[in-house]
Amino acid sequence: MSERVTVGIDLGGTAIKAGVVTSEGEVLGRQAIPTPLSSPKAGISAIIYAAQEAVRASGINPQRVQAVGVGTPGVLDPKKGVVREAANLTGWQNVPLRDQLAHSLELPVRVMNDANAAALGEVLYGVGRGYPDLILLTLGTGVGGGLVMDGRVIEGSGGLAGELGHMRIEMSRPRPCGCGKYGCLEAYVGAKHLIRRIHEALADDIQEISLLHEKAKTGQKNGAGGIAVEDMFQAADEGDGIMARLVDETAMALAVGIANLLHAFNPGMVVLAGGVAQAQTLREKIREFLPEFALPAFIENLRLETSTLGQDAGILGAAAAAQSISGS
Amino acid sequence: MSERVTVGIDLGGTAIKAGVVTSEGEVLGRQAIPTPLSSPKAGISAIIYAAQEAVRASGINPQRVQAVGVGTPGVLDPKKGVVREAANLTGWQNVPLRDQLAHSLELPVRVMNDANAAALGEVLYGVGRGYPDLILLTLGTGVGGGLVMDGRVIEGSGGLAGELGHMRIEMSRPRPCGCGKYGCLEAYVGAKHLIRRIHEALADDIQEISLLHEKAKTGQKNGAGGIAVEDMFQAADEGDGIMARLVDETAMALAVGIANLLHAFNPGMVVLAGGVAQAQTLREKIREFLPEFALPAFIENLRLETSTLGQDAGILGAAAAAQSISGS
Repeated sequence: MSERVTVGIDLGGTAIKAGVVTSEGEVLGRQAIPTPLSSPKAGISAIIYAAQEAVRASGINPQRVQAVGVGTPGVLDPKKGVVREAANLTGWQNVPLRDQLAHSLELPVRVMNDANAAALGEVLYGVGRGYPDLILLTLGTGVGGGLVMDGRVIEGSGGLAGELGHMRIEMSRPRPCGCGKYGCLEAYVGAKHLIRRIHEALADDIQEISLLHEKAKTGQKNGAGGIAVEDMFQAADEGDGIMARLVDETAMALAVGIANLLHAFNPGMVVLAGGVAQAQTLREKIREFLPEFALPAFIENLRLETSTLGQDAGILGAAAAAQSISGS
Repeated sequence: MSERVTVGIDLGGTAIKAGVVTSEGEVLGRQAIPTPLSSPKAGISAIIYAAQEAVRASGINPQRVQAVGVGTPGVLDPKKGVVREAANLTGWQNVPLRDQLAHSLELPVRVMNDANAAALGEVLYGVGRGYPDLILLTLGTGVGGGLVMDGRVIEGSGGLAGELGHMRIEMSRPRPCGCGKYGCLEAYVGAKHLIRRIHEALADDIQEISLLHEKAKTGQKNGAGGIAVEDMFQAADEGDGIMARLVDETAMALAVGIANLLHAFNPGMVVLAGGVAQAQTLREKIREFLPEFALPAFIENLRLETSTLGQDAGILGAAAAAQSISGS
């Protein structure tokens, strides 16, 4: 019998990526198209198109595809395969994604949270191989995550597990978060909040000269644009004291968040993914601060890594999740 | 074929409790004896004795017992069945509990964390029936917990998962915790810390009259003893303003801790167990404060309950875990 093949789909706010994947994690063919923002119906048609084009690109007989997995953003009900709402996808409210895809593609379909799919991808095919207890923390505009325990994705009773950015780490002087609450991890380390913190730090500290003071002014003059999170890391690396302190504070907030997750889950590996996770300084600082917040037994065998699959993690994880529904 | 029967053992710092349990969760016989504190060897003999006496009390043919489950305190390696260390059990360091029991009893043995066993007990036979995604939070001298997701106990890569008391909830003005870190949930709501906080609150607020001022003085004169955590709840119920504020602060810290766990795991139920959890006022206040800290989707279908199995949760959960190793 020939090898089992599934299609993994990463449904994002800007692009839909599809890949034909073997049970070994080999991508035989792929297709990426812009996400249509007009309606869920157009989105579903685009998913079907991307899946079919990926199969065509792989050159395999379409009959060999045994199931489809989709990683989606937003709030979903994974048991029913329904996207309840997704901030980045216009009009996606209570969309029965699984059933509609299954009907059109005539294949079993599994729908899961995109960060969970990425976490599963890392465990099966990425840096997390051999680490069945793994937490993926996505550090971007928002902060989120995926949890795999004993090789299985943790979805929770309503499919909402892994909302790691809204862990509260501060009671006394909490910063406001975009979610309407206060003191959330995201309010300290989310990219949007970091930009605000950079400007605050520059405004607060007018005695000390920061490499970014000039850039901040230019940015303000030009409206949007201006300082990016990478500028903070770069300035800190170049010896900017104000930015170095902010990087420390960011790493410390992340170390607290990670320590809390270690105590709850005791994972063998924590994988950092997303734009903010790319800064080497940040990872080094987190490693430095972790012992201050985590009990020794929880870090003695811990590996803290960055995603190796990058953009492919979602496709691979969704495809792997589909393997499990197509499995005998 | 007659029903599968296992023995569940709850190894505690003061007592060893054994029960003969059916797969339906019926306790056919039980035995409880004081925990010998002289050595691990004496402890293991006592476990064997308690198990055998429980079987005798049940009146069943000993041949019907198919496996043994043990819930233990402290740090363990559940994969190897080794108790690495246990603060409340003198001399228990790197004790190969599983293998020694299996050898003596000639039965398969599973060793697990006691809070995990209790959580599993609640899911299978207690208030958590029908809630396969459940968090048990034990509120006593220390604060700990057990996690069951999709009906399976979460143990983590090193068997340490569920250390929920050492989640940090405060950065700016953290209270010191017994673990050597700062700002841990336990430093706010653990019974030992609560007693200290009661005395602090009484000392801070000498303008307002508390029902406990007199008791605090007596207690100090008499050395140990004096005020208990129940006094705080009772005084608050009777209209004591100082204690009511402290109860509010306690409930708020717990609501933050629980909200953080909801965001990470999205459980269908949170079960509170242990001495401090018995106060009805506390549970009501936690319910009141939760919406301040948890995103709406995570609490709309949440049930917050207290343990119904109480002392039996550990025996039943350990017995149930043994069912799974004895299962075909």
